[in-house]
Amino acid sequence: MLQTRSGKRTAPAAVKIAVDMEGEGLIDKEAAIMRIEPAQIDQLLHPMFDGSELAAAEKLTKGLPASPGAATGKIYFTASDAEAAVVNGEKVILVRLETSPEDLAGMVAAEGILTARGGMTSHAAVVARGMGKCCVSGCSEIKVDEGNKELTIGNHVFKEGDYISLDGTAGDVLKGKVKTVPPELSGDFGKIISWADEIRTLKVRTNADNPRDAKQAVEFGAEGIGLCRTEHMFFEEERIPAVRRMILADNEEERREALKFLLPYQKSDFKGIYEAMGERPVTIRLLDPPLHEFLPHTDVEIRELSKQINVPYENLAKKTEELHEFNPMLGHRGCRLAVTYPEIAEMQAEAIIRAAIEVRAEKGLDIIPEIMIPLVGLRTELADVKKTVIKVVDQVMADVGAKFDYLVGTMIEIPRAALTADEIAKEAEFFSFGTNDLTQMTFGFSRDDTGKIIKEYREKGIFDDDPFQSIDQVGVGKLVEMAVELGRQTRPNIKLGICGEHGGEPKSIDFCHRVGLQYVSCSPFRVPIARLSAAQAVIRNR
Amino acid sequence: MLQTRSGKRTAPAAVKIAVDMEGEGLIDKEAAIMRIEPAQIDQLLHPMFDGSELAAAEKLTKGLPASPGAATGKIYFTASDAEAAVVNGEKVILVRLETSPEDLAGMVAAEGILTARGGMTSHAAVVARGMGKCCVSGCSEIKVDEGNKELTIGNHVFKEGDYISLDGTAGDVLKGKVKTVPPELSGDFGKIISWADEIRTLKVRTNADNPRDAKQAVEFGAEGIGLCRTEHMFFEEERIPAVRRMILADNEEERREALKFLLPYQKSDFKGIYEAMGERPVTIRLLDPPLHEFLPHTDVEIRELSKQINVPYENLAKKTEELHEFNPMLGHRGCRLAVTYPEIAEMQAEAIIRAAIEVRAEKGLDIIPEIMIPLVGLRTELADVKKTVIKVVDQVMADVGAKFDYLVGTMIEIPRAALTADEIAKEAEFFSFGTNDLTQMTFGFSRDDTGKIIKEYREKGIFDDDPFQSIDQVGVGKLVEMAVELGRQTRPNIKLGICGEHGGEPKSIDFCHRVGLQYVSCSPFRVPIARLSAAQAVIRNR
Repeated sequence: MLQTRSGKRTAPAAVKIAVDMEGEGLIDKEAAIMRIEPAQIDQLLHPMFDGSELAAAEKLTKGLPASPGAATGKIYFTASDAEAAVVNGEKVILVRLETSPEDLAGMVAAEGILTARGGMTSHAAVVARGMGKCCVSGCSEIKVDEGNKELTIGNHVFKEGDYISLDGTAGDVLKGKVKTVPPELSGDFGKIISWADEIRTLKVRTNADNPRDAKQAVEFGAEGIGLCRTEHMFFEEERIPAVRRMILADNEEERREALKFLLPYQKSDFKGIYEAMGERPVTIRLLDPPLHEFLPHTDVEIRELSKQINVPYENLAKKTEELHEFNPMLGHRGCRLAVTYPEIAEMQAEAIIRAAIEVRAEKGLDIIPEIMIPLVGLRTELADVKKTVIKVVDQVMADVGAKFDYLVGTMIEIPRAALTADEIAKEAEFFSFGTNDLTQMTFGFSRDDTGKIIKEYREKGIFDDDPFQSIDQVGVGKLVEMAVELGRQTRPNIKLGICGEHGGEPKSIDFCHRVGLQYVSCSPFRVPIARLSAAQAVIRNR
Repeated sequence: MLQTRSGKRTAPAAVKIAVDMEGEGLIDKEAAIMRIEPAQIDQLLHPMFDGSELAAAEKLTKGLPASPGAATGKIYFTASDAEAAVVNGEKVILVRLETSPEDLAGMVAAEGILTARGGMTSHAAVVARGMGKCCVSGCSEIKVDEGNKELTIGNHVFKEGDYISLDGTAGDVLKGKVKTVPPELSGDFGKIISWADEIRTLKVRTNADNPRDAKQAVEFGAEGIGLCRTEHMFFEEERIPAVRRMILADNEEERREALKFLLPYQKSDFKGIYEAMGERPVTIRLLDPPLHEFLPHTDVEIRELSKQINVPYENLAKKTEELHEFNPMLGHRGCRLAVTYPEIAEMQAEAIIRAAIEVRAEKGLDIIPEIMIPLVGLRTELADVKKTVIKVVDQVMADVGAKFDYLVGTMIEIPRAALTADEIAKEAEFFSFGTNDLTQMTFGFSRDDTGKIIKEYREKGIFDDDPFQSIDQVGVGKLVEMAVELGRQTRPNIKLGICGEHGGEPKSIDFCHRVGLQYVSCSPFRVPIARLSAAQAVIRNR
């Protein structure tokens, strides 16, 4: 032999080779597992571009690879236009400055999503990954004119209906139509993953907030839900008017009236999720975003809404003005809402518990809900909201004449919570590390504003990795380790997991394994990657 | 004796009694020092209300006691109207939703400042305290209509020119005109403070960014400048056009052109400060705020500026749009600006050094500038900016043929910097704890948005103190202690100080003493309080 070189192989080939070599006794299962790049599993789960068409395609620009896969379609600039085009049989790429919860239906309809702003954990990125939908975000070189429906990239000007393609795995935006091929899940894939399951010690849960995603995650092997966000539930068409009435209410009585309307919807949301998960644990997070996210922002939208719900424009404008914040991510959100408006937490807790009771009665499933209180920084804060929750749960159980278990815990995402985790654990029965926000606050980097800065820092060698993708082990990781140690000091059996996006990233999963978390939780399409990575972490760290 | 009760006394009385009793040999100096409440010193340094007029006055509402003292005057709603009225011989209270650096001249002219928004460390609060100007901020029950020039408090509607009074020590807003009496600094006061100076180990510096405040601070006993902010210098009338040209520039060459124009102004700013401080140490912070703070925000203002500087409205509007951030406090600011635009840091460093060289030559003062790089989170980031600074300093010294000492250090205000202070100290020759921002990020509480939440949390017993006033010893304090220990591990002689607002607050000063900082730095009018508190810290912790 004169020379040897590593042979590059596609994901399907890598899996086949590893499984075949194990079958032939050339390598053992652990070696087979170590031969697979977790990123390759991504390729197996998402559409890819046809190889020759991809080679011939023109790369227009590059953004962040926010959600893997390949997509090709006609450009539309609003969620409703995208939906309408899909109903007409078209394949669509949704192009926006950034997305927000109101765009959800358009995002679901599209083949892929392209945003000019945002980072790896902005709304578009997180939601797209949750759905397994291709997404390129933080694409700062594109100009999106939503008013005139024009997308400009360098010298190219694209109008509504023009074709464009997105490579969510590389972060590339390609010109025109490029053929995609569907994902390939073979029997060999199932073998490798089951070997991984035998070896790993970390459990793998999923971040999902609707039955469709929950089912998909279970199919991919998820062992529970680590994070069920409740925000999107509030945005749905038949509920958003009541949500807005609640926000615009002048007193507690009016707020409770609106919340009463929402209760049955919330309850049915949770029932659907419990049923999809069977008896796997489900962690539900109380309302997290600041209230102004539920109100319209532009003057035109405010006037529209004013007519719709028959509230004077001035009242709406005034409320929007009052709720304005300079730094919304550091403002009146998370558990702070529950402290100010305990009735919101009461409604959600009631829905969570009644849903569990009804599913037990109707389907015989023994649900143990895990109620998660977000953005806690002090034990006293957590105690205040926990008291609200327990009061309601006790009331419901007395009301229904049923008793059962549930847990109340918290996200660890505020640096102070990690620093004082021994105190927090006096109230919290579990910790889930919200590493998106923890990274945001530990670095002082806004997730939605620093895509460009992070890119520059990586180019200049100031960062090796994007800390929103791969956990910063030296800094943020130190807080996680501190919280694990202090938490266990107070409550030796405290449940410990992670639900930030890092929970689906291989290097971060290795870290989670080493510091002794019990589970990672990630979007459904990352669950297989997490299962493999968790096994690799065991093998690597022997 | 049938009964004894503590006698309440005014500040002048308390000082006289303590000094007299020491003089009579009834108590020693330490006991005398411990008999003075640091808050009482505030009363001695600021105007107070005439006792009987205060008792008769009607209290309209309460806000945050952002800066102590008493003020009475006619209401004006803009900085320029306030200035004009003062030129006409009127006494003015400036009433705003909030203030920003552009309002500075109006704030200087007014007797006192009232803002509806903001907290204890918002712009109005910090600047007012710096000037010893009475200020009530975060006054959420007032409605300020700047357009119609109307102030509504409950049933009262005040128009421009109506009288109102502010008690900045209590946070009260009073109706109409209430007589004030000037401050009373007696010889006894000087005695007590000099005894404190004999006992304290903490040095006391000041936060000042102009010669007037610096001189005032020196008169009050400041031993240096712990924080010279450079922002306000950029807002001055003859410079702001060049600052805006720099921001709107399309390339580095245009930016440098604008910066060249600013250099001589910056240099003369620093010369004035050095001369006011003599050879006392001066720590200068490189540009900190996000660039959009220097551009107009409303459409009307953008159009005005467009005409003024002859730049097309569309260009201005587009740039303002590009610079928009969702969470500016976590965005492109601090050292991140210096990484992206090293030319800005170069200009400032050149100004700092040339000013020192010239003052040495002209006045024989041996200045050792301390150049402080803000918002650092990683060693690599600090190294990048430090390299830029050193390159310029070396160039200037070679150019001028002079050599002298200077320090390069950093604010510790990003949680990650505290967690990895051993790394940071490899580059930083000093740490100054920016506890305003450190509190903001450790709690995830926006300084400008959470006044109301903090008030609620205190009412509900979730907080004992406002963490922006009195340092959170358990959480934020843990990071400070960590940074002190890790910093000294790497650089045993590292200089350690604090420049956040906590540096002037007694309980926080006690903490600073206990953890081993070398100096605290606070606004000029708090320097005497800090001197007394530092002595009390020694005595208390013996």
